[in-house]
Amino acid sequence: MTRLRDLGISIGRLPIGRFNAITDVGGVLVGHTTVIADSPATVRTGVTMIVPRNNDIWTNYAFCGWHSFNGNGEMTGIPWIEESGMLGSPVGITNTHQVGLVRVTLVRNGVEAGVEGFHLPVVAETYDGWLSDIDSFSLTESDVRAAVATASGGEVAEGNVGGGTGMICHEFKGGIGTSSRVVDQAMHTYTVGVLVQANYGSRTDLRVDGVPVGRVISYDQVPAPWPAREPGGSIIVVVATDAPILSDQCRRLARRATVGLARVGGVGHNGSGDIFFAFATGNDLEAGQANPYELRMLPHEHLDDLFAAVAEATEEAILNALCAAQTMTGFQGRTAYALPLEQMVETVQRHRA
Amino acid sequence: MTRLRDLGISIGRLPIGRFNAITDVGGVLVGHTTVIADSPATVRTGVTMIVPRNNDIWTNYAFCGWHSFNGNGEMTGIPWIEESGMLGSPVGITNTHQVGLVRVTLVRNGVEAGVEGFHLPVVAETYDGWLSDIDSFSLTESDVRAAVATASGGEVAEGNVGGGTGMICHEFKGGIGTSSRVVDQAMHTYTVGVLVQANYGSRTDLRVDGVPVGRVISYDQVPAPWPAREPGGSIIVVVATDAPILSDQCRRLARRATVGLARVGGVGHNGSGDIFFAFATGNDLEAGQANPYELRMLPHEHLDDLFAAVAEATEEAILNALCAAQTMTGFQGRTAYALPLEQMVETVQRHRA
Amino acid sequence: MTRLRDLGISIGRLPIGRFNAITDVGGVLVGHTTVIADSPATVRTGVTMIVPRNNDIWTNYAFCGWHSFNGNGEMTGIPWIEESGMLGSPVGITNTHQVGLVRVTLVRNGVEAGVEGFHLPVVAETYDGWLSDIDSFSLTESDVRAAVATASGGEVAEGNVGGGTGMICHEFKGGIGTSSRVVDQAMHTYTVGVLVQANYGSRTDLRVDGVPVGRVISYDQVPAPWPAREPGGSIIVVVATDAPILSDQCRRLARRATVGLARVGGVGHNGSGDIFFAFATGNDLEAGQANPYELRMLPHEHLDDLFAAVAEATEEAILNALCAAQTMTGFQGRTAYALPLEQMVETVQRHRA
Amino acid sequence: MTRLRDLGISIGRLPIGRFNAITDVGGVLVGHTTVIADSPATVRTGVTMIVPRNNDIWTNYAFCGWHSFNGNGEMTGIPWIEESGMLGSPVGITNTHQVGLVRVTLVRNGVEAGVEGFHLPVVAETYDGWLSDIDSFSLTESDVRAAVATASGGEVAEGNVGGGTGMICHEFKGGIGTSSRVVDQAMHTYTVGVLVQANYGSRTDLRVDGVPVGRVISYDQVPAPWPAREPGGSIIVVVATDAPILSDQCRRLARRATVGLARVGGVGHNGSGDIFFAFATGNDLEAGQANPYELRMLPHEHLDDLFAAVAEATEEAILNALCAAQTMTGFQGRTAYALPLEQMVETVQRHRA
Repeated sequence: MTRLRDLGISIGRLPIGRFNAITDVGGVLVGHTTVIADSPATVRTGVTMIVPRNNDIWTNYAFCGWHSFNGNGEMTGIPWIEESGMLGSPVGITNTHQVGLVRVTLVRNGVEAGVEGFHLPVVAETYDGWLSDIDSFSLTESDVRAAVATASGGEVAEGNVGGGTGMICHEFKGGIGTSSRVVDQAMHTYTVGVLVQANYGSRTDLRVDGVPVGRVISYDQVPAPWPAREPGGSIIVVVATDAPILSDQCRRLARRATVGLARVGGVGHNGSGDIFFAFATGNDLEAGQANPYELRMLPHEHLDDLFAAVAEATEEAILNALCAAQTMTGFQGRTAYALPLEQMVETVQRHRA
Repeated sequence: MTRLRDLGISIGRLPIGRFNAITDVGGVLVGHTTVIADSPATVRTGVTMIVPRNNDIWTNYAFCGWHSFNGNGEMTGIPWIEESGMLGSPVGITNTHQVGLVRVTLVRNGVEAGVEGFHLPVVAETYDGWLSDIDSFSLTESDVRAAVATASGGEVAEGNVGGGTGMICHEFKGGIGTSSRVVDQAMHTYTVGVLVQANYGSRTDLRVDGVPVGRVISYDQVPAPWPAREPGGSIIVVVATDAPILSDQCRRLARRATVGLARVGGVGHNGSGDIFFAFATGNDLEAGQANPYELRMLPHEHLDDLFAAVAEATEEAILNALCAAQTMTGFQGRTAYALPLEQMVETVQRHRA
Repeated sequence: MTRLRDLGISIGRLPIGRFNAITDVGGVLVGHTTVIADSPATVRTGVTMIVPRNNDIWTNYAFCGWHSFNGNGEMTGIPWIEESGMLGSPVGITNTHQVGLVRVTLVRNGVEAGVEGFHLPVVAETYDGWLSDIDSFSLTESDVRAAVATASGGEVAEGNVGGGTGMICHEFKGGIGTSSRVVDQAMHTYTVGVLVQANYGSRTDLRVDGVPVGRVISYDQVPAPWPAREPGGSIIVVVATDAPILSDQCRRLARRATVGLARVGGVGHNGSGDIFFAFATGNDLEAGQANPYELRMLPHEHLDDLFAAVAEATEEAILNALCAAQTMTGFQGRTAYALPLEQMVETVQRHRA
Repeated sequence: MTRLRDLGISIGRLPIGRFNAITDVGGVLVGHTTVIADSPATVRTGVTMIVPRNNDIWTNYAFCGWHSFNGNGEMTGIPWIEESGMLGSPVGITNTHQVGLVRVTLVRNGVEAGVEGFHLPVVAETYDGWLSDIDSFSLTESDVRAAVATASGGEVAEGNVGGGTGMICHEFKGGIGTSSRVVDQAMHTYTVGVLVQANYGSRTDLRVDGVPVGRVISYDQVPAPWPAREPGGSIIVVVATDAPILSDQCRRLARRATVGLARVGGVGHNGSGDIFFAFATGNDLEAGQANPYELRMLPHEHLDDLFAAVAEATEEAILNALCAAQTMTGFQGRTAYALPLEQMVETVQRHRA
């Protein structure tokens, strides 16, 4: 698995965390289930789980917020997220038609964990119907359970894995990518991690650190994945931080994913579900507490580096997805080709000379 | 099945449609699947489908809008509704844990109908876990399919049916209710229909046409359904109209459901998902159209009677749910008692004398 | 000045604060400047200031939130309120055309108070152009300064005062009204105060504690203020509390003003600017702080009584405005008549018997 | 006045309109009043007016929508814009403290134009207090009137003019900029125009067509305008189009200004009011119409080029502001230096080689 920094390219000015991954935020685990099969249906799909607080999120909520840059997609759980500013479940990412299955499995997880009452889990999606027979509904409940059960910290697999398995980004093979940044603020050190499921964009718009790489990779050289532009596309961005910020501030962070996306070349096409979600673990919000929570809140004036961190980590996470993803042939014999890394690097270096 | 008007009580000043139901809006169909079983699990649940445009909604969209008065609940499909202002699926209502199943079944419906691309159906819920073993996940895909397949115009069953089967409202047995109003505006006649799944509220707050009926029905007389107040509660309100209004105007209508709810006694308790959805069939929005749509739009200044219609029909729909619902015993032997209609009527008449 | 409780009618179940006014929330001051003149223009206008934290709000912010039930009106300051969830100025209420003047004067106040940087004060309005020559722009900067300078705690003048001077409500003379509630929650006592500038509604919709009083007061008996319905109308509701709640929770409180409004008879007419604003002083948010704020937050599950408090206090504040307001003749000889209190009381008592 | 294209640099792939200005949208006029004085106060301020429909906007509304990328700023008129999706006044842009004055003057304009009822004009701002004595409140009512009266089509002055007079962008002299794009869609030709008042950003983040120009211009070479970073900053983006789109679609266009901003180097600093407003003149919405409006609506699927147009024109408008602006010395002898154009061009060309 190649990452952008392995190629000598880094994004922005802020330092990265240990794994340059969303798991650099303490307690955030990531699990993938990848489903690749050629019969009975041709399937290139999966599910990715972001599990905050070492899976104690069911009873120790986290402040959160979302932003829809272009809402041609789905994310469940929105009414309560918007009302309460709190997250009470892992966050699942899968394909468009499997959202229902992932949601019901997360509800079962919550029930089995002995959490009383009802569950409003957060599940988002992008469309993998070009490389995968999406109408086969191939993901199973045990696939979803496995993504939660195997979620772990440390390094995160990228590219053709989990929910990102069948995704296409800027007309190259896309998928899962992640990155992180470390910010010093008011004598504290905070980490911001980002994970994307990248499945959007036109080749001509692709930029790597500002260099218009997409314009120099011709379709003769690297064929397009499709004869004409497809419906769909989309990108889900999940932002995590350990900073002590509140829900409005999570919303502010979520909106900054737009900056990273725009820098890589996203414009929010009509068919794209560009939905961003941010959560913050810097405060404990125990379920069922009788007394007022004791909280800390970073003043708004101290958020600029966190904003920059989201922008940089989003930009790099998308590029990591493109670097890690490998050429894939799937449904109806269609092929999405990997971004030609040597050519990309050579183009960037030439511009920088 | 008793309705409020059968008891000599009517709400508001506007005339009702033929069936005093959401189906008075042309092309709007309603289907219920009711699931009542005592083994293997004790189940009192179901699903209700509101199917616009005689089920052509998959390819002839409708302008729509939503409002969350209190978002402790779920409704899928929000990002696209908010982005586009358009509805492209039936609207399903079920219990909290069955949202995923209903969503996936509607997606399958769309696929089988030959609609290309992806589907972002709208599914909402309220919590029936007091009378039904919600963690048994008893609804099946065929139950959901049946609700769509049997959806029809004309009279609508109310009370303990469909998604409303196990619901409790103002501490009496609740469920599904509907009502409609007819409005003359600028030489046209428009119909507004409302359907509610009512599962919220305290007895003490219940008012019937302004009369504080809830305060005069003691717990000695009619026991409470629970020893102490439950988590949950919620009300879903679906508003339909044939008026030629746009998405912003649908949002305005959706917000007016708050007025009807408040008049009956809702205050939007923290645990309540009070989510309102409105759609308008007065313009055709054919999928895949190459040229600009030709539309009509009622000027904002002409909406006041439509606003009043939503308020009145919501108020009456909730009361219809209470009138139609019958005493039910369910999960763990718990009983929710029907509103004592004679006492209710007598109280209202006494106040009016 | 008559208040509803002086007439033997009280709203709801929760106890009131000492003054039954928004000033029962510690540190909240109210100032009115009333401008009544017959030349050079016929003017019935003014401005009301709600000044939190004894006017330290410029440097010790308060969490806040807003809700627009029907946005045919103006409130300045919205982008920062929505972004930050914080209030940093007094809240002014005046007529529609004087918003600019009140805003600029508050900016000057901030500058003179030595607060560095820029100011984004909150100013809202309703339309008094039926009784006052609104196009005379008669309010002066010194009028606005006086409202701030004379703001005080304790009893609050109601009816034809301040911003409410020329207002009309349910086709009776309207204006300023206030009320409060005291809530015990988790071993703490919190106060919720509401102040309204009431200028909306049809007579036929007016209800007093659920009794349809408006329907029994004929136009023969008490003439309408106008030959036909006017454009405009509107109600501004300001909610204050000393509870330690955050911005999302203030938004929740703001939305509950809808319940109080609906119970009195508001439906949010198209021409109405029904805009609600809530702030909470239970946490200190000192400007320019280098370290994270230390905060307390009432868990969402403990908000139901605060919600009820907002609904009840809003309902009663509107009715207090109607009780206190007195018949006024103004611009072009038009007259708005006071609500006939004896008849109102008699009607309510008859229904309750 | 130099423009980016005069220097051989153009942005994006879409063709520009005749004047490469917001005035390429038929009927859109722009007027500036520039106020530069050294006594009694040192003032570098002004106001810019965008006047749609040749100033018939008071009685022939336009669909519109707004987006706040970072709301540390002011824009009046939001509640009605959000409620109705319609604009009914010119759009003024000035400094933070003059919003009230501009609002009241526009109200007077509306009154004098004989428009009945009330006015809710749209006025936005950025902060010019570094170069101008903002607390002198130097703009006058006649300045505002002049900006409306002199508004015209055709070429638009850029840089240190109108509301942009005292602005600073990416630590160079900023101000007003504009650009346009022409889009062919479904056999129609539509124009998208953008005007910005640019006053945000760090030098290090500045990119010109993706090239990190800001990093190569040292503070030794071109001094910073301030010893340390200032509060404030902000950018107002106004988008106009003649395409027949509705309010939701205007909101979609407004959000795309984020893409142009991000490409130039904006991240939405905490102190920045990054507020975007879009309106569309492709449908007529006559005030007081009794019958439904007859409208046309471009299907959502046909918006991608309009989205790209907003992104490109916003990027170029900001760069035009930087190219046109000239070094200015103002309040307390402070100087903001113009972007060194030769060095900028040389840097861009070197990267492209």
